[in-house]
Amino acid sequence: GHLHNSEAFNYGVETWEAYKRGGLSKDLVEEQKKVQEADLLIFQFPLFWFSMPAILKGWMDRVLVQGFAYDLSKAYDGGLLQDKLSLFSFTTGGSQEMYSNEGISGDIRYVLWPMQHGIMHFCGVKVLEPHICYAPENVSEEKRKEMLTAWTQRLKTLWKEEPIDCSPEWYFK
Amino acid sequence: GHLHNSEAFNYGVETWEAYKRGGLSKDLVEEQKKVQEADLLIFQFPLFWFSMPAILKGWMDRVLVQGFAYDLSKAYDGGLLQDKLSLFSFTTGGSQEMYSNEGISGDIRYVLWPMQHGIMHFCGVKVLEPHICYAPENVSEEKRKEMLTAWTQRLKTLWKEEPIDCSPEWYFK
Repeated sequence: GHLHNSEAFNYGVETWEAYKRGGLSKDLVEEQKKVQEADLLIFQFPLFWFSMPAILKGWMDRVLVQGFAYDLSKAYDGGLLQDKLSLFSFTTGGSQEMYSNEGISGDIRYVLWPMQHGIMHFCGVKVLEPHICYAPENVSEEKRKEMLTAWTQRLKTLWKEEPIDCSPEWYFK
Repeated sequence: GHLHNSEAFNYGVETWEAYKRGGLSKDLVEEQKKVQEADLLIFQFPLFWFSMPAILKGWMDRVLVQGFAYDLSKAYDGGLLQDKLSLFSFTTGGSQEMYSNEGISGDIRYVLWPMQHGIMHFCGVKVLEPHICYAPENVSEEKRKEMLTAWTQRLKTLWKEEPIDCSPEWYFK
C-alpha cells in the first residue's frame, strides 16, 4: 500500500500504520492470527551464532509489529500479548560445558536474554524454562534418542509448568 | 551443487564441504572475498529486537561458514579471521536510560555479547568499542546532527583505537 510518510521512511512507523489500517501483507496477517489464537508459542530451531537463524529472526521482525505486539507504554509486563506462554527449544553446536558459566561461550542464559527478555517479555508473553539439546551432532545415537524422549515427556506436563522469573537476576546472577 | 551427505542433511556440514570444494554460491564467495580483504568490518544497522535485523543476521549465517571463519579447534582467539577489527554501530528505539544497568531493557552490553563475543570473537576478529546512537527518532534535529558529527569525528581517529577486552567481565561485571 501507500507509505504513511514517504519523505522520511521509517520502517517501524510504516508497519505500525499499516497494521492499524489493515494494510499489512497477507502472510503477516495470517501469522498474527496464529499468534493471537495461540496459548503457547514454541520456537524450535538450531542455534546459529548465539541466536535464531535469520529466517526466524525475520519472523520476529515482521510479525511482532507495534500496535499488534506492543505499543506506546505497552511493553514488558504491559505488552499486548499477555496471557500467552512461550518456550525456546533449540539445539546447539557447542557442548553444555562450553555454555556453562565458566565456559568459553559464556553462560547459555546470556544467549537467552535477547530472545526471552528482549522479544517475548517485551511483548508481555511469559516464558517457560527453555529446552536445550546440547550438541546432538556429537553425541551417541542412544543419547539422541534420550533427548527426544525427554522432550516428549516434558510436553506431556508442559501445561502444569510455571513461567520462569523474567528479571535480569535470572540471567545474570 | 550436490549434497555431501544427502541421507542426513546438516546445514553446517554442507556449507563447510561446499566451501572446501569451492562450491558456495557466487554471492557468498564475493562477500567472503570482501571480508578477507578488509582490515575493519563496520556493521551499521538499526537494532531490531535486541539484535541485528534478520537480513544482516542472514549475512552472518551464510557468509561466516566453517572453514572460512572458524574451524575445528580454531575459534575465539584461534579463529580464522585474525588481524581484523570489527565495530558494531547501531541506532536504537529505546533510550540510553532504558539500556542502562538498572533500566528495563537491561544493560546494552547484554545486547552486545551475542554479536561481539558470539560472532566476531568466535571468528578471531577483534572488536572496537561499539558506536550506539540512542533513540534518534525521539531527539531533536540538533541532537541528531551532533550524533552524525560525533561519528564523523570518531572515524577520523578510528585506526588509533585499541580493541576492547573480549572477556565476559567486560559484559557482565
